[in-house]
Amino acid sequence: MTSKNKLIYLPLGGAGEIGMNMYLYGYGPSGQERYILADVGVTFPSMDGTPGVDLIMADTQFIQQRADQLDGIFITHAHEDHIGAIGLLFPRLNAPIYCRKFTAAVARAKMEDRGLDASAIEILPPYPEMQKVGPFSVGILPVPHSIPEASGLVIEVGGLRVVHTGDLKLDADPIVGEAFDPDMFKALGKKGVDVLVCDSTNVFSNKEGRSESTLQAPIAKMISEASGMVVATTFASNVARLKTLAEAGVAAGRSVCVLGRSMQRMLGYATQSGVLTDFPPRIDLEDVASVPRENLMLIVTGSQGEGRAASAQLARGKYLGLTMKENDTFLFSSKTIPGNEVPVGRIINSLAMQGVKVIDDSAEIYHVSGHANRPDLQRVHALLQPTTLIPMHGEYRHLKEHAQLAISNGMQAIVAPNGSVVEIDEKGAKVVDTIETGRIYLDGKQLIGAYDGVVLERIRMATRGFVAVSLVMEDADVLGVWAEVVGLPELSEAEEPLVTQIEEQIERVLVSQKAKRLLDDEEVEHLVARTVSRICRDEVGKKPVSRILINRLES
Amino acid sequence: MTSKNKLIYLPLGGAGEIGMNMYLYGYGPSGQERYILADVGVTFPSMDGTPGVDLIMADTQFIQQRADQLDGIFITHAHEDHIGAIGLLFPRLNAPIYCRKFTAAVARAKMEDRGLDASAIEILPPYPEMQKVGPFSVGILPVPHSIPEASGLVIEVGGLRVVHTGDLKLDADPIVGEAFDPDMFKALGKKGVDVLVCDSTNVFSNKEGRSESTLQAPIAKMISEASGMVVATTFASNVARLKTLAEAGVAAGRSVCVLGRSMQRMLGYATQSGVLTDFPPRIDLEDVASVPRENLMLIVTGSQGEGRAASAQLARGKYLGLTMKENDTFLFSSKTIPGNEVPVGRIINSLAMQGVKVIDDSAEIYHVSGHANRPDLQRVHALLQPTTLIPMHGEYRHLKEHAQLAISNGMQAIVAPNGSVVEIDEKGAKVVDTIETGRIYLDGKQLIGAYDGVVLERIRMATRGFVAVSLVMEDADVLGVWAEVVGLPELSEAEEPLVTQIEEQIERVLVSQKAKRLLDDEEVEHLVARTVSRICRDEVGKKPVSRILINRLES
Repeated sequence: MTSKNKLIYLPLGGAGEIGMNMYLYGYGPSGQERYILADVGVTFPSMDGTPGVDLIMADTQFIQQRADQLDGIFITHAHEDHIGAIGLLFPRLNAPIYCRKFTAAVARAKMEDRGLDASAIEILPPYPEMQKVGPFSVGILPVPHSIPEASGLVIEVGGLRVVHTGDLKLDADPIVGEAFDPDMFKALGKKGVDVLVCDSTNVFSNKEGRSESTLQAPIAKMISEASGMVVATTFASNVARLKTLAEAGVAAGRSVCVLGRSMQRMLGYATQSGVLTDFPPRIDLEDVASVPRENLMLIVTGSQGEGRAASAQLARGKYLGLTMKENDTFLFSSKTIPGNEVPVGRIINSLAMQGVKVIDDSAEIYHVSGHANRPDLQRVHALLQPTTLIPMHGEYRHLKEHAQLAISNGMQAIVAPNGSVVEIDEKGAKVVDTIETGRIYLDGKQLIGAYDGVVLERIRMATRGFVAVSLVMEDADVLGVWAEVVGLPELSEAEEPLVTQIEEQIERVLVSQKAKRLLDDEEVEHLVARTVSRICRDEVGKKPVSRILINRLES
Repeated sequence: MTSKNKLIYLPLGGAGEIGMNMYLYGYGPSGQERYILADVGVTFPSMDGTPGVDLIMADTQFIQQRADQLDGIFITHAHEDHIGAIGLLFPRLNAPIYCRKFTAAVARAKMEDRGLDASAIEILPPYPEMQKVGPFSVGILPVPHSIPEASGLVIEVGGLRVVHTGDLKLDADPIVGEAFDPDMFKALGKKGVDVLVCDSTNVFSNKEGRSESTLQAPIAKMISEASGMVVATTFASNVARLKTLAEAGVAAGRSVCVLGRSMQRMLGYATQSGVLTDFPPRIDLEDVASVPRENLMLIVTGSQGEGRAASAQLARGKYLGLTMKENDTFLFSSKTIPGNEVPVGRIINSLAMQGVKVIDDSAEIYHVSGHANRPDLQRVHALLQPTTLIPMHGEYRHLKEHAQLAISNGMQAIVAPNGSVVEIDEKGAKVVDTIETGRIYLDGKQLIGAYDGVVLERIRMATRGFVAVSLVMEDADVLGVWAEVVGLPELSEAEEPLVTQIEEQIERVLVSQKAKRLLDDEEVEHLVARTVSRICRDEVGKKPVSRILINRLES
C-alpha cells in the first residue's frame, strides 16, 4: 500500500431517503481507484412528483464514467430497494454480481426479465469466507432482516476494515434463516472496525426491536378465533411471516392457499435456494372452492394498497373468482409505508362495507419491523466498536439522529448524504468532496433523467389542462383555426363551448395583426399561445399547457 | 303533527370520509318536506386523484332540486371541512345561514370573497335558546373542539329530538371558549334524545382525550430550554393553541411574531368576535430583525407541509427575509393528517439539514386532538342516552366501529353513509332509501362534476403523455403532417426524434390507404390515433392521449 492509496465511501442513493440504496466504495490512487458497488435498488413513483413513471433509481453516471474501474457489485438482500434496478442498470455497470443464494435467485429473474445473461451472478458463502474483488476482500455477513439471507458486508482493503450492515435487525429467532450472531459481531469488533456504515431507518423507534417469532402466538390465537374465511396480507418477500401465517392457519384447521404472483415467486425462490424447508402444505386455487370458508385461509399480496394486487381486488369485490363476505376476517400483517395510507385506508373501508372484520397493525401485535431500532443500533455500535459511524439508509433526519446517537456514546460520526465523497483512514472519515447525484426514471421502455423535463410537462398538463391549436396559413392569410381542449371544462363562464371561444378569439387576434407579423411562425405561435392563455384564464380560471401547430401552404 | 309527517336524516358528505361535511334534515309529508342543512364543508384535492383541482365539496343536486324547501343552513364551526364551501355553494342553496359569532366572521369573509351579500348570515345565541326555522326548532349547543365556538345542534321537530354533535371533544379546560358542560348534556339526555348523530373520527383512539390545557406546561418547558430562535407551527384556526404557544414564548422572555395570513386572520376573527381577549403582546414583522434570535419566537402556518405556507418556505431557505440557523428549534404542535406525511417529512429533513432541532408530535407531548376519543364517545352516549346512534363524520370503518360500540353498550345504531335516507321516529331510525351522491370540484373558476371526465383526462395525460397531430388535407391528398409530443421522451429507442417517427409513420399509413377512406374524417382520425399509439408503444413503451386536428382545404 502506498501512501497515495485512499479508501473512499460514496453513497449514490439511500443516504437521504428510505429506498433506492446504492453505495460505492473505492480504493486506490486518486483517479485510478478500483470500485465495488453495494446494492442497486429502486424506489417507487407517486402521482405527486412522478406520474406515469414505473420505477426510480439512483443516477449511475459517476460509475459509468469509470465503468472499467468497477470490479464488482454486491447485493445485500433481495428487497426491491436494494436489488430492484439490477436488470435495468446492469448494462451500464457490467461487473460481476455477488450475493447469497436466495438473493441470487431473485437477481437471476430480474436479469432474465431484461434479456440479460445471468451468469454474471456469483453466489458467495458467508463470512468468515472472504472474496477477493480487485483490491478488496469482501465477506458476506449474515444478518436477520425481513427477507431470507440478508447480509452485511465486511470490506477489507489497505489495512482498513469497513462493516456495511445492509438492512438488519438483531433477531435471535427470525423463523427463517440465521439468527443474529452477537459473537461474530463482537469478534469483528475485536479485530477492529474503522468505519461502520449502518442502517438508520428505525433510529427514531425507541423500544428494542421484537423478534419475528413473537408473532406466532398472537397470529395463531387470532386465526383460531376467527369465524368465516381468513385472509392475511404481508410483504411478499417476508418468507418468515408467510410461514408463520400459514402455520397458524393449518394449526387452526384451515386449508391455506397463497395467492398473488410475487408471493408465490418468493416462496419458490426460498424453497429452491434451500432457506425454506418446512412450509406447511398449501392448496391450489382450483381446490379453494371445495373448502368451506370457515376452514379456509388465504395469504395474499397487496399490503400497501397496490391497486392491482389481490388485497385491492378483493376489496373491490372479486379476485380470481373469490369474494369476501360478512364475518370474514382480513389481517394486515404489515405496516403501512408512509405515503400509502390513503390506498390502504380505501381497502379497509371497502372491506368494512362488506361486513369484513379488518385487523390492521395499529395495535402492533401482528407485525414487527425488519430494522434495528434505536437500542438495537446502540448494541451494534457497542459490539463492533467502530472508530467512526457513517449512518446510511435513511432520510436526512434519520442520518443526523443516528450520527448524534453515536457521538453521544463517544464515537466519531459523520453525516454523509448522497453524493458525499468520504475519505476513510485509520483516524476516521471525512467528507472531502461532493459530486452531483440524481435519479433515473424507468418511464415505459426508457430510462430517462429526472431532470429531462418529460415528467414535469406531464405534471403541468395534469394540473393545468392542455390546448392544442392547429393553424392553416397561406402567407399572411389565416385559412383555418382548429383547437382541441383536453382536461378543461367544456363550457366557458358564458356557457359557450370553450373550444369555440378559443378558435374565434385566435382568428380575431390574428386577423387584426399586420401582415408582416403573420409571416413569422414564432410571432404567430407567441400570439396564439398568449390568446389561449388569456381566454382560459378569463373563462375557466386555468392557464393550460398549449402547443401551436402551424401549417403553411405554399402560395 | 299528522301521521304523514316524517323526520329524515340524509348525509350528503362526511359520512364515509373525513372532511366535506354536509348533512340534511327534512320534516314533513313525503315530497313536501322542509329542510335544514348542517354544514357546507370542503375536502382537499391531491395529485393522486384530483390533480389541478382547487377544492372538493359534496354534490348539492338533491337540495338544488328542492331549493324552495330549504329553510336554513347551520354551520357548526369554522373549520374548512364544515364551512369551506359556503361561498361557493350559497348561490345554489340560497337560505339563511345560522351560526355563532366567530363562525359568522369566517363565513362572512368567505361570502365576500365570492362577491356575495353576507347579510344572509345570522348569529344565534347558544342553547338553551332555540331558533325556529321552518318546522324545526334548533339550538346551538356549545361544544369544545380545536377552534373557537364549535357547536352541536339540538334539533326538535314533530315531538322528536335529535342531537347533532358537530365535531367535539370533552375538554374541561379548552383555554379558549366554553368548557364541555356535562350537566347540559345530561339534562338533554333527561329530556330525551331520539337520535344522536355523532362525530366518529377518533373512535379508534382508545385513550381518553387530553385537554388543550395539558399542553401549556410541556410547551412552556420546551421553549424555555431552547437556545436559538424558536419557530412553532400548528393549525391556523386553533386559536387556543396559538395562545398557549404565544404565552409560552413570552414567559420564556421571547418576542413573539405570528406569521402567515391565515393565522393572522383567525386571530383577528377571534378578537373581533370577543372569544379571544387576552392574547399576549406580539411584535410585527418589521421589528423581528431587531430582536436577537435567542429572544425570538415565530408562530407560523404550514403544519401540513403546504408548499406555499411559511413552514415550507422556511424549510426551503427563506420566508419574508427570515432564515433558520443551526441550533434553532422548530416545533410541530400538530398532527400530520394522513396523506401529508411526505410533504411534512420533506420539511423536517430540510430543516434538519440546516442544523435545526425539529420536534414533531411523535411523542404525543405537544399536540392534542380536537375530537372525542372512544371513551369520550361512550361518555357522550351515556350522558345523552339516545334511543339510536347514527355515527357521522368518519370513513366507513369509523362509522361501523362507532355503531358497534353503541350496540355493545345496549343502544340501537345504524350505519348511514352518504346518500342514505334515514327515517327517524320514536322507536328508532332506519335507512329507507338511498340517493346518488357525488362530489363537485372547484377547478379554477368553475364548479365541475367529479364525473365530468375533465380531471380523468388530466390524469391520463399525466400518466401517459400527450401527442397532438395536425393534418392538412385536400380531398384524399395529405398536404402536411405535424405532430407535437408532450411529456414523452424526445428520442425513440433507435435514438431518433420521436416526433419525426410519428410524422413519417402517419404519412406512410395515410398514403397507403384507398382514397375513399381518406375522405372520411372519422376514418382518418382513427387511423392516425392508432398509428400514434402503436409507435409510442413500440418506441417508448407508452400509450399517450392523442388528439388529431384535421384541416381540409376546399378543393
